[in-house]
Parts: sequence; structure tokens; C-alpha cells
Amino acid sequence: MFSVEDVVFGGGKPVVIAGPCAIENREQYFAVAQEVQRRGIRILRGGAFKPRTSPHAFQGLGEEGLELIKEVKQATGLLVVTEAMDTETVDAVAAVCDIIQIGPRNMANYSLLKKVGKTGKPVLLKRGFMATISEFVHAAEYFVKEGDDRVILCERGIRTFETQTRSTLDISAVPLLKKLTSHPVIVDPSHSTGRGDLVIPMTCAALAAGADGVIVEVHPNPRKALCDGLQSLDFPAFGRLMDEVDRLLPYLSRNGHP
Amino acid sequence: MFSVEDVVFGGGKPVVIAGPCAIENREQYFAVAQEVQRRGIRILRGGAFKPRTSPHAFQGLGEEGLELIKEVKQATGLLVVTEAMDTETVDAVAAVCDIIQIGPRNMANYSLLKKVGKTGKPVLLKRGFMATISEFVHAAEYFVKEGDDRVILCERGIRTFETQTRSTLDISAVPLLKKLTSHPVIVDPSHSTGRGDLVIPMTCAALAAGADGVIVEVHPNPRKALCDGLQSLDFPAFGRLMDEVDRLLPYLSRNGHP
Amino acid sequence: MFSVEDVVFGGGKPVVIAGPCAIENREQYFAVAQEVQRRGIRILRGGAFKPRTSPHAFQGLGEEGLELIKEVKQATGLLVVTEAMDTETVDAVAAVCDIIQIGPRNMANYSLLKKVGKTGKPVLLKRGFMATISEFVHAAEYFVKEGDDRVILCERGIRTFETQTRSTLDISAVPLLKKLTSHPVIVDPSHSTGRGDLVIPMTCAALAAGADGVIVEVHPNPRKALCDGLQSLDFPAFGRLMDEVDRLLPYLSRNGHP
Amino acid sequence: MFSVEDVVFGGGKPVVIAGPCAIENREQYFAVAQEVQRRGIRILRGGAFKPRTSPHAFQGLGEEGLELIKEVKQATGLLVVTEAMDTETVDAVAAVCDIIQIGPRNMANYSLLKKVGKTGKPVLLKRGFMATISEFVHAAEYFVKEGDDRVILCERGIRTFETQTRSTLDISAVPLLKKLTSHPVIVDPSHSTGRGDLVIPMTCAALAAGADGVIVEVHPNPRKALCDGLQSLDFPAFGRLMDEVDRLLPYLSRNGHP
Repeated sequence: MFSVEDVVFGGGKPVVIAGPCAIENREQYFAVAQEVQRRGIRILRGGAFKPRTSPHAFQGLGEEGLELIKEVKQATGLLVVTEAMDTETVDAVAAVCDIIQIGPRNMANYSLLKKVGKTGKPVLLKRGFMATISEFVHAAEYFVKEGDDRVILCERGIRTFETQTRSTLDISAVPLLKKLTSHPVIVDPSHSTGRGDLVIPMTCAALAAGADGVIVEVHPNPRKALCDGLQSLDFPAFGRLMDEVDRLLPYLSRNGHP
Repeated sequence: MFSVEDVVFGGGKPVVIAGPCAIENREQYFAVAQEVQRRGIRILRGGAFKPRTSPHAFQGLGEEGLELIKEVKQATGLLVVTEAMDTETVDAVAAVCDIIQIGPRNMANYSLLKKVGKTGKPVLLKRGFMATISEFVHAAEYFVKEGDDRVILCERGIRTFETQTRSTLDISAVPLLKKLTSHPVIVDPSHSTGRGDLVIPMTCAALAAGADGVIVEVHPNPRKALCDGLQSLDFPAFGRLMDEVDRLLPYLSRNGHP
Repeated sequence: MFSVEDVVFGGGKPVVIAGPCAIENREQYFAVAQEVQRRGIRILRGGAFKPRTSPHAFQGLGEEGLELIKEVKQATGLLVVTEAMDTETVDAVAAVCDIIQIGPRNMANYSLLKKVGKTGKPVLLKRGFMATISEFVHAAEYFVKEGDDRVILCERGIRTFETQTRSTLDISAVPLLKKLTSHPVIVDPSHSTGRGDLVIPMTCAALAAGADGVIVEVHPNPRKALCDGLQSLDFPAFGRLMDEVDRLLPYLSRNGHP
Repeated sequence: MFSVEDVVFGGGKPVVIAGPCAIENREQYFAVAQEVQRRGIRILRGGAFKPRTSPHAFQGLGEEGLELIKEVKQATGLLVVTEAMDTETVDAVAAVCDIIQIGPRNMANYSLLKKVGKTGKPVLLKRGFMATISEFVHAAEYFVKEGDDRVILCERGIRTFETQTRSTLDISAVPLLKKLTSHPVIVDPSHSTGRGDLVIPMTCAALAAGADGVIVEVHPNPRKALCDGLQSLDFPAFGRLMDEVDRLLPYLSRNGHP
């Protein structure tokens, strides 16, 4: 259990992190920031650097995205989590954000994990989509070994033969990781399923299994998103998600999981 | 939505099916039957025919197990689900039970599915541990094509590279199957995880995701079970599971899943 | 090592089994039989009963297919391998063929394996596409336990996340199975890859790894095949396959594998 | 097809790259170098920087290993391939070696691929053990986009449910990659299987399927290796591998693969 400013991870009340997959422009980023803040969200997601399978796909706004993060923080007071993709840009990312995200492709990029461990910022570490739970726990140790134990572990789906979802969200990883480590554990129902229509039920499943939070994608117009639109929630769907989490809160505060 | 006697599947209230993996002897089966009935359970599980990877492992009591099913039903009034492994014994199984189970190894045993479809008993069809959701839905059609649409689909984990659990419980299959079919969908947290310590959180996850029920293993003394003991709940743990389901009920009755 | 009539399995010289996936009609089946015989093939494949994912797909000619097998054997003297799908039809299948095939969906259908073990015919047992090597070896024991040890193990690909091939042909299973058992081991490059253009290189790979043979699909007109056409070889491609196997023979006769 | 000094990749004659997994000390590295040179090998492998799952495992000799590479090249005239793990050490690695290896954990480390693309050295790119063939081909494009197309693609096994091998060597990737790209394709039978006893048959399988070469691990005393000893060949086994490749050469020079 630890806090990032006023937000407590692992304290019993689930943390919902929300925002766009990629920061596309000022208008889009501010629109999402205001909407999620209106629903009580404290931590905004949004990538400036996007690792993409093809070198020809949109790679994020880069430095310009980091500038927009600074502006949105000043304008709203929101905390921000954003991804660091390589050791070269870690310091620039650390300078503007509150939590540094390591994506699934980089879970085993140990040089990057060590460098992030030296920034003084907590890390949100995503499980590689083909990483065992044991490898995931070991990867977190590369960060912790630098002296900071503020790691948020994020289950985001593993690659299987099933093709109706982008990957298979391994919810059993939640109770397992809580047994094996003392780190808070959250779940990403957006990237794991790759389908906006599964985000609400999988959020409820994750929280009922004991997850300390979720990280979800929200976009003003998912069909026009430059990146991963199919899995993003539009504003009305995001509202329904928050209503559903509210309905589940009484249970979560009393659950008797071992 | 349909009923098996007084039990409604798909009606909003989750159905908990409980019992031993295999019927080992009269004492064990009656002990579990009485314990689960005491907690309000209406459907007892328990296998007389057990398909085992090795021909040298315990294969179930066979005909003797079917006799015990008859006796336990008379003594308690419980309904019983038990597995049919082959076309030869389908009729004998159908004669004593209320729901016929088809196990994951037989999900694509189409001859068996057709024969079960002719018995007049509803089927509890388990997803093969390497079957896609599409193949699972098609398999159910082999049963339905015989004229009976009382199929309960059961997600029981798929095989992945992760080794800390026996298989990976694919909870996203629950909302997906409910979109693709009108059959009730339940989850087996015992066989899927292979770990008794994960049964409670995974039951809650499944129900929160919209499952219509769960099927769990209960044994008076899991360490001495002839089959799959590690994943069985003893009586106190089963009590905690039922308490947890009770705590979740108020949420389940009001959930706003699409 | 054992013989089926004049064909030796496991004797150093690779056995090529060839024929259509399904027997579609007399003309197609005789055309393939004559073509493969012309190239020196002794064992013809071809299914009368076809287990298909959807109950609405072509399921094979059934009894009519068994009649055609009888006729083709009389006319050509070829030996025939064909699939038994269920315990009901095992005896009818055994009455016409020389080797009974158990398909991957039925590898763990232990009742079927036991029944086949009583027919007095050798079995060609395909690895389930979700089965570990250990489970595969255990499945063979269900057959052997009936008193006949003439099992041909057939690696036919396992299900993975890769989608460019139908499954992933696990060639390392060949040397592993030869270490773990004394059964001959063959490979199915047609069903495993699902692509006719990969059949030749994967046949060579399998034989170079020590396989005792291959089973391949040949069809007079793959584009019009009722079942699995994309993976079938037409006659010219089958000719190139046989030429390639001939080129590899000098190596195979001298290989020094442990 | 391209050359690295006097070694031609993709020219029909297979290239065998051999050496230890990790450079452990001068004695071990020189012993292997001399042994592989004695058998006609031109390219020596050996890691100075080793990415390991646990931060507490041996991580390689680092700079000291790079010094030993310089010495071994001067003493023997061998060419060397060694891994670059992060952007910080790419230039130091490029300064001493002839081919830069990118390991499977870093296949999708696009920043690293771009940096390596600027060094003027060819790259040996290993397929991630969770990467589709399509992602593998895209990753190579990150390197090529920098202006150098000297990429050697290396299939090294994908992660599956099978546990008797470390991963499943996907030999069908060889003909597929040759259809999809013009890069040479080699195979790593040591890391993929994790078993020295499978290296010879899998090498033969890979070459018979059309691979342009293999990269294998050789160690004077595999049982005492600091890293991955079980999969290394000792000198006599390496001799048998080379004899086997020699036996296969006449076939390889005449193969008629499409």
C-alpha cells in the first residue's frame, strides 16, 4: 500500500485510471481530462510515446505530448501516468508525469526498468503478454533493486489461441500476485480484451477478484482514434462504467477474500 | 433461461453447483451431499465415470457410482449432475441424473453430443481446454440439433503457457458467450485454476462478470481425495465461499451489464 | 518397428501415406488412389466419417464411403487407413481398413481407444492439438493396454497464438517421442500447417528430424475439395513431394541421429 | 543474400554459428573458439551482456566480455556475433563485433532496433518467443528503415503449453519467412528446445526445411556453465553435429524447394 499524492493504491478502495490510449492533440486530451475529472477520476492516462508493431503506424506526439501533459496537469490538477519507451527519454517522461508506465513489450527490458528505478517516480508495470507470473514478479525486482518499492503491477492479458479477444485477460493473476508480492495489482480491461463492449464486465470481474484498480481507455470519439479505437469507451459508456463501479463498492468494502 | 425442476438457470440469481470431483464411496458422497444441502445448494455434482490421462489412474466407481447417485437423490431430494463419457453409458447415466455433463476432453466428441441430445435431459457442456469460443458454440449446436435447447455452457479454463494455475480461466468468455448465444453460462473455478485457494476470488469474478452460476468441488478431506484434491474446498472453505456469494448477491441483483 | 502387410513402420525407410482428406465420390477416390499408386505409395488415406466443428458442414459419406474403401482395395491392392469417430462405427470401420485412425479431437476419447484396441487392427493415433507429449504417450497406453502394441504416433500440430498456419507443427515431438516410446512416429504436414505450399519443406524437416513417415493430403482439384482443400496437394505438387523425398533418401539411410 | 566478410548468408550453403551462451572467462571462451574453428566454423557466438529473468542471476561479464571478444578475434581471425541489450551499450558492442544480435526479449524494443540500424553492422534478429511471424517481419523493418537491409532472421521457438521443451521450435516459420521477406533465415535449436539432446535432429530439420543456417551453443563443460548449460553441446556432441551437417550437405545443395 502506498500513496501517489492523495491517491492510495492497495488501500481497499479501487482506483480507476482513465484516459486516451494516445494523446492525439490538445483538444482531444483536454476533453477527456475534463470528462474523467467530472466523474471523480484523479489519475489520467495518455501516451506521448507509443510503441507500435509497424514502423509506419502513428508513434505518438513525442515531446509535444509531454508538453500537453504539463499543461493538462496545470489546468486540472490531475495526476498523470504515461509510458516511457526507452532509456533515452525516461528523464523527460519522469519530469512531467506522476507515475511512469512500462508497457508489456518492455516488461523484460531490464535496462529500462533499472533506469526508471532511479527517477524517484513510482512505476506502473504491465505484464508482458507472454510473460509468466513468475517472470512478471522478477521484472518488478529489477525496479525495486534500485531502492524504490512503489510498483503497481498491471495484468493486461496474455496471448492465447483465442481470437475473439485481443488477448486473454488472466484474472487469476490478481489473487496470485497478491499472494506472491505486496505490490498493488490493477487490471487493464481495455488493451487485454481489445473490445469496448467487454470493458464493463471485465472491470467488475477484476475488482470482485480483489484488484486494487483498473486502467481504462476513454476517447471522445473512439471510431476516429489514431490508436486502438475499438477498445476505447466513449463518454456515455465511461459514465456507465463508473456507475457500475459505484454499485459494486458496497461489496468491495466488505469482501472477505483470504 | 430454463428450469431444471425448481432451479432456474439464467434467471438472475446465480446457481451454485457443488460436490466432489469423483464419487469415492457412500460415506464421502453422503457427507458432501448433506453439507452442501445444509448451505442451500440444490444441485450436487459428482462423477461416476472419470476420464483420466493415464489408464492406470482411478477411473471412477462406474455402475456402483450410479447406484450411489440414485440413493443420494432419494435420501436428500437433491438434483444431480454427473458426467457421461461415452455413448455406451449415456443411457445408464441419463436414467439416474438430472443434468448430463460433457467434460472438456469430449466437447468435440460429436457422436456423444448427439446421443446425449436424444436422452431428454439437459446438458452441462464444458468448454474444451483448447477450444475457441466459436468451436464451443458450434459444439452446443450438435446437441441442440437433436431438438432440445437446454444447454448450460461451462467455461473451465483454457490451456496456456502459465504454469502456476492448471489452466487459465477465461472470464471474458462469460460476456462473450452471453452475446453469442442465449444459453446460460456458468464457470468452474476449481478445475480451471487447480487451486482451492483461488476458488473464492474466481467465483466472485465470474459472477460479477455476469455468469449465471458456478460449479465447485467440495470434499470432506481434500488431501485424501482420489482425484484432484488440491483444487477441492473442505467444508469450512466451502462455507466461506457461500458467505462470499451471499455478500455479492445485492450487487448481482442490480447489475447494469449491457 | 512392425509391419502392416508389406509396409514396415520404423524400419529406416520413410513411409509416405497419401490420399484425400475425405472420400467425396467414387471418381475422386479412384483418381487419387491410382495417382498415388503410380508413385509407389502403398497406403491410401481417406475419411468416410469426418468430425467437423459445425454440425452443418459436410460430415463424410459414412457407410457409402466404407463401401468405396472396399472397392478401391480390391481394384488396386492398396492398404487403407481411415478414421473411426465413435465406438458405434468402430467395427464397421475395422472390417474394411488396414489401419484405424483416431483423430486429434478423439485422442483423449478413452472409450474409443479401448474399443479400437480390441479390433485387431493397428492404430494411427493423432496427437490432440491441445495435448502435451506426456498426455499423447498416455493416450497410446489406453490402446496398448488391450494387448496390441501396433501404434503409429502422428504429430499433427499444436494450437498456438500464431495465425499464419492452422496450428504449429511441433517437430521436436518427433525425437522426443522416439526417446519416450518405441512406437513409430509420423508427421502430418497437411493438417498441421493448413497450407499446401508448406507441405514439401515440412515433410523434409520431419524426415530429417527422424520421423518414420508422413501422411499427406492429395486431391485431383484442391479448390473444389469438400473439406480442407487449401492444404491438399494437386497431382503435380504431389509429384514434386515424392521427388523431394527421393532426393532425401540417401541422407536418411545414413543419418547418425542418436 | 549478403556477405559478412567471407561468409555468405542465403547463398545455399548453410552457415553454422557456434559458441558459448555467455562468455564466462578467457579460458572457456578461447577453448570454445579454438574447437569451433578446428571444425571450420567462421562465426563465433558468445554474450557479454546477458538479459536474465532474475536480477540476481549472472548477467554476463559486460565490458570485460567485450575485451575478450577483441582478443579472440585478433588471436583467431574468427568473426563474432554478440548481443546488444540496450541503447547505452550498442556502440561499445558494435565496436568489437561483426554482427549485432538482438535477443527475443528485445525484438519489440524499437528504440534499440533503430539505434542498431545506425551502427553500420548487420543484425541477427531473434524472434520474440511471443511474437507472431507478422510482428517479427515488422520488427525487422524498424532496422531496415535506417538504411541497412542486412538482417538475419532467427527463429528460436515460441512459447506454448508444452513443457518438455523450453519453447516450441516453429520450423514452419522458416519457409514462411522466406516467402514473406528476402532476408536470410536461421534457427536456434539450442535456446528453443532447451535440451542438448534435441539439437542435432532439430538442426537437420531446420536445414532440410530450407534454413540458411543455425546458431548453436557449445561449451567445454555444459554441466558447469553459468547460463543455460542443459542446452549446450560439449565438444564431442558438437563434432557429431558437424558430421551430421556434412552428411546432409549433398541433399541441401540439390533441394528443390519452391
